[in-house]
Amino acid sequence: MQFHLEGFMPGDPRMTVAAPDVSAHSDKLPERLDVLIVGCGPAGLTLAAQLSAFADLRVAIVEQKDRPIELGQADGIACRTMEMFEAFGFAERVRQEACWINEVTFWKPDGDAPDRIVRHGRVRDTPDGLSEFPHVVLNQARVHDFWLDVMRRSPRRLQPHYSHRLLDLVVDTATADDPEKVSPGHTENGAIDDHRVTVRLERTDPAHAGEIVTVQARHVVGCDGARSTVRKAIGQQLRGDSSSQVWGVMDLLAVTDFPDIRFKSAVQSSSGNLLVIPREGGHLVRLYVELDPLAAGERVRDRGITLDHLIATARAILHPYRLQVKEVPWWSVYEIGQRICDRYDDVPAGGEATRLPRVFIAGDACHTHSPKAGQGMNVSMQDSFNLGWKLAAVLRGQCVPEVLHTYTRERRAVAQELIDFDREWARMFSDRPRGALAAAPGGAADRRTDAHPGDGGVDPKEFQAYFERHGRFTAGVETHYPPALLCGASTHQSLAAGFTIGMRFHSAPVMRVCDARQMELGHVARADGRWRLYAFGTHDDVLQDGSGLHRLCRFLDESPASPVRRYTRPDEDPDAVFDLRVIVQAAHTGLDVHASGLPILLPAKGRYRLIDYEKVFSARLTKGETIFEHRGIDRTRGALVVVRPDQYVAHVLPLDAHEELAAFFDRFMLARP
Amino acid sequence: MQFHLEGFMPGDPRMTVAAPDVSAHSDKLPERLDVLIVGCGPAGLTLAAQLSAFADLRVAIVEQKDRPIELGQADGIACRTMEMFEAFGFAERVRQEACWINEVTFWKPDGDAPDRIVRHGRVRDTPDGLSEFPHVVLNQARVHDFWLDVMRRSPRRLQPHYSHRLLDLVVDTATADDPEKVSPGHTENGAIDDHRVTVRLERTDPAHAGEIVTVQARHVVGCDGARSTVRKAIGQQLRGDSSSQVWGVMDLLAVTDFPDIRFKSAVQSSSGNLLVIPREGGHLVRLYVELDPLAAGERVRDRGITLDHLIATARAILHPYRLQVKEVPWWSVYEIGQRICDRYDDVPAGGEATRLPRVFIAGDACHTHSPKAGQGMNVSMQDSFNLGWKLAAVLRGQCVPEVLHTYTRERRAVAQELIDFDREWARMFSDRPRGALAAAPGGAADRRTDAHPGDGGVDPKEFQAYFERHGRFTAGVETHYPPALLCGASTHQSLAAGFTIGMRFHSAPVMRVCDARQMELGHVARADGRWRLYAFGTHDDVLQDGSGLHRLCRFLDESPASPVRRYTRPDEDPDAVFDLRVIVQAAHTGLDVHASGLPILLPAKGRYRLIDYEKVFSARLTKGETIFEHRGIDRTRGALVVVRPDQYVAHVLPLDAHEELAAFFDRFMLARP
Repeated sequence: MQFHLEGFMPGDPRMTVAAPDVSAHSDKLPERLDVLIVGCGPAGLTLAAQLSAFADLRVAIVEQKDRPIELGQADGIACRTMEMFEAFGFAERVRQEACWINEVTFWKPDGDAPDRIVRHGRVRDTPDGLSEFPHVVLNQARVHDFWLDVMRRSPRRLQPHYSHRLLDLVVDTATADDPEKVSPGHTENGAIDDHRVTVRLERTDPAHAGEIVTVQARHVVGCDGARSTVRKAIGQQLRGDSSSQVWGVMDLLAVTDFPDIRFKSAVQSSSGNLLVIPREGGHLVRLYVELDPLAAGERVRDRGITLDHLIATARAILHPYRLQVKEVPWWSVYEIGQRICDRYDDVPAGGEATRLPRVFIAGDACHTHSPKAGQGMNVSMQDSFNLGWKLAAVLRGQCVPEVLHTYTRERRAVAQELIDFDREWARMFSDRPRGALAAAPGGAADRRTDAHPGDGGVDPKEFQAYFERHGRFTAGVETHYPPALLCGASTHQSLAAGFTIGMRFHSAPVMRVCDARQMELGHVARADGRWRLYAFGTHDDVLQDGSGLHRLCRFLDESPASPVRRYTRPDEDPDAVFDLRVIVQAAHTGLDVHASGLPILLPAKGRYRLIDYEKVFSARLTKGETIFEHRGIDRTRGALVVVRPDQYVAHVLPLDAHEELAAFFDRFMLARP
Repeated sequence: MQFHLEGFMPGDPRMTVAAPDVSAHSDKLPERLDVLIVGCGPAGLTLAAQLSAFADLRVAIVEQKDRPIELGQADGIACRTMEMFEAFGFAERVRQEACWINEVTFWKPDGDAPDRIVRHGRVRDTPDGLSEFPHVVLNQARVHDFWLDVMRRSPRRLQPHYSHRLLDLVVDTATADDPEKVSPGHTENGAIDDHRVTVRLERTDPAHAGEIVTVQARHVVGCDGARSTVRKAIGQQLRGDSSSQVWGVMDLLAVTDFPDIRFKSAVQSSSGNLLVIPREGGHLVRLYVELDPLAAGERVRDRGITLDHLIATARAILHPYRLQVKEVPWWSVYEIGQRICDRYDDVPAGGEATRLPRVFIAGDACHTHSPKAGQGMNVSMQDSFNLGWKLAAVLRGQCVPEVLHTYTRERRAVAQELIDFDREWARMFSDRPRGALAAAPGGAADRRTDAHPGDGGVDPKEFQAYFERHGRFTAGVETHYPPALLCGASTHQSLAAGFTIGMRFHSAPVMRVCDARQMELGHVARADGRWRLYAFGTHDDVLQDGSGLHRLCRFLDESPASPVRRYTRPDEDPDAVFDLRVIVQAAHTGLDVHASGLPILLPAKGRYRLIDYEKVFSARLTKGETIFEHRGIDRTRGALVVVRPDQYVAHVLPLDAHEELAAFFDRFMLARP
């Protein structure tokens, strides 16, 4: 954690310096905005937190409710999401407060007495090495609190405008469709400098009820949920299957002798199926309970399902275990449906060549699914983490506006994959367990039931195997963006096999040279819109003159072709756009960074030109394997790993591929004046 | 982290439920108090935070300054202190914000050119396995902030009364000296129910300037620093050496090419000595600079030492490295002095048999020392952590008042040891490095200088060796209270050799059985005044009927002699006084806690009688050695480790020593009605 750069500041160092033009939060929306975000759910708050980091952007977030939520529907937080939280500075808070999902147990009908359930298997939920973070469960409202905290401490001191309901929005397509307008550099500092989206909102707070507010924005992002008004305004629709499956969900404080009540447990019984999700605080538990399927034309709301019915069903499934319910903070009933939009922005099909997106949708506004895979909140937040840095880079004149097209391309494929997974998972979950109704006498708890293939349904072992196979997927670490504008080709992938281009940068421990501190290399990446360049040296590279690292540093520092020189303004800190980190194989004691004479490794920053000492790492730890083994980095040739502001690997290159590196960034970055 | 026990509560779970009689903070001090704490330094705030945890205690803390400090003098935080912070819930915040001291480097004059310094050694600051926490450096003001935060969230919502200056205090010794009054149980619920200390304070806030406030308190604790008014009021004096050594200290934002500026570095040069302490935020650094010794009768304040002089001296010492100072947030000059009081309370010498302490002093009020060992704040906070639970236990009628005598006995010995260490450390530090003035030609950086024993001064290698030997001491983990009222005899110490009676409970990782979570066993201990009983089972003990753990649980649950039954009120949760944790050797999968039929391992708590699932652990981890090896626990016989509310091991007993266990607590605990 770095602070005091601009002079000693007392108090909480997570409180940033406010932008000079920031005044106390007003309940009046500004009339002109760079970005208007609609909706204070996980997607909207992630985006707002990301954009609030930039002192020069004018951003507002509106919400039709009159205050933050206290109780949320979503609860699962995937490892990958924790990695993102780390970049925003609150992963540790979540780690402490949340319930950790460490193991999953599987239950099925007892072969001897099919009306009783028995445990038939267990797996570790998160295999060792998948992520440095656990898979956890925490009330969505608390995640919102942490986002609001990031916003409050940001340079823009951003706070939501509650009690604002979106009425309509209009994009000025006459100019937006003009192909002249999409080429980069046509506007001052290369950004889109017009405000072509007109939004009308109605205030619903008693003091201003009925007042209409009109806002002009460069971009509007609809994070307004499954019934999104923004989605309708841009003519998009959620398309997909409806399903006859009905599930109830309830959060309980209860007393039970079911021994796995603090494990995630998938229970398949002859009375139906149930999923146990333990929750934060040691007592709360969520049960997902399967209910009778819908008849043709029937809607779940017509059925009048009661909480008592849900509890009675759960009791029947858990038999012979008892369940004594003390308090139900929240419950609901829903039909499973997987639906998705064709596009996540307002560009018409086939219109990418001539039109730039002005309006986006994210989260539930563009995809819905069954909650049981615990993916909803995670995918929504990753949507807007993907969009946030791109919007900032375009609005701040760093990148060509065409990078905005990559949002739909990258994120829609992820949602489609989720829906495919979700459909299969929901189907298997709702199937009768094979053997449940035609169990043979016998009775060991772990007897395999696939000895009865004839009775249909899903084999519990197959169910468990499917779950295990998809562990990486549900952890959120399988997202893989294809090579395109922002991700390079895999020509040199073998130099760092564990840093797959298009996948998230998977952290590993290293030792910081300046102070011999062991730490996670990936945690140097903050959600600050900067690119990371991780340069891994060859075995004999200790930054000596002529070595690969030395030449790379010299190139970045001195060459007119250097991306650092081309895209960083002279009035910015030298690492304001590209944050170079060097990892040598030698022990930290064998290195003299000062003596190497490379200013980029000891950059002078801030008004005092204080030195940033934290750029150089050693792979050598006090014990254990190094990052070179963990991530398959070529010890002989080294590697340069380029990482996007959203923690995804953009490229892997040889250390001396200076021209290729320059060419990669020239595809989408704009030279500074 | 456990919460929602009394029903679902939205918001931050670290916010406790307020005591029913707590109202908004008033700037008017209550007239009658259980404890009045004088002084908002580290000792006072630790005590206030500890006492604020008890909803039934009336406590106030006063401070003559008008607000919290923004900049503090102390900065070093020892591993042991971090362990205490963990019990209060903010170790992780400190870990994130602080600078970690990982390695110490040693510099001496270059043999070839004695006016230049060279590095001659380095050691790891905190050896592996010393503690699960690092040694860190953080501004004292931030530590205060965290304590204030604990107080604000506590059941008593405690806040300091600023702008209150202590005038005097009087103890009603007439009754206090009455031996009739010291026997336990003489007052309602066994506590001392009188308010024998009369305190007068003057308000200094402009609105009430000059107003005199009189408070009657059962106890007063003076945490009012080296010039303590409370100390004077009880007739105690700081005694000890004065010294001619003078040091300057300054916090700098600076640019330097000294390569170890982010390491703790001890520099011995031919121009004097200097200690580098890197500080939080990556840029700030503290330098302790040795100045010319005082002449006889000279005082440091007479010398008129300026900041420029300090900086010039530091530059000369660091030669040939440059030091360009940009900002000096704080600096000071001091003489080294180690002084200590004879007693830490108001009981006259030899008066323990007939008199109970009513007034205590803690921290700098009873001991002062050189700041360079980084111990001051740590020892002060440990003082009042030691006192806090004892005061609470006596005031709440749990313990006989004689336990209060143990405060002076235990803590004064620790301070004396610190002073002895400190004196030696200061002497070595201020000595000329041997070889500095008579260096032979030659010149490798690591040449040993003890080839010149004849020139006097301290051998740099000896200096380094002393530093290494005392690593455990400066980490705060060597504190060892002798057998006495609150610590048992070492008869059965061999059953758990790594949990030394009288020393702090040294945590190690285990796996929680209810949810397969790997965690530090010691972190179950919160600063809540409860005793911990850690029962380690034999190799074949899976809680089966007749096993040692089973019999111990049955005894604790059912026997009239059980301390749990004797000292826990029927209206309290079963673990309100004793928190039993059981550690088995078998894997968590081989255990069925429900089936063992032991209510004490699944206690029903709170208004819903919800089950606490977190009492049982397995020593078996996914990899690595177990707590049985780490702490030398007898795998054949098991062990019961009794731990005090301040995390110190009180006793080690065989699992079946039920009577000895009962007898131990009968020495100082009071049976509940």
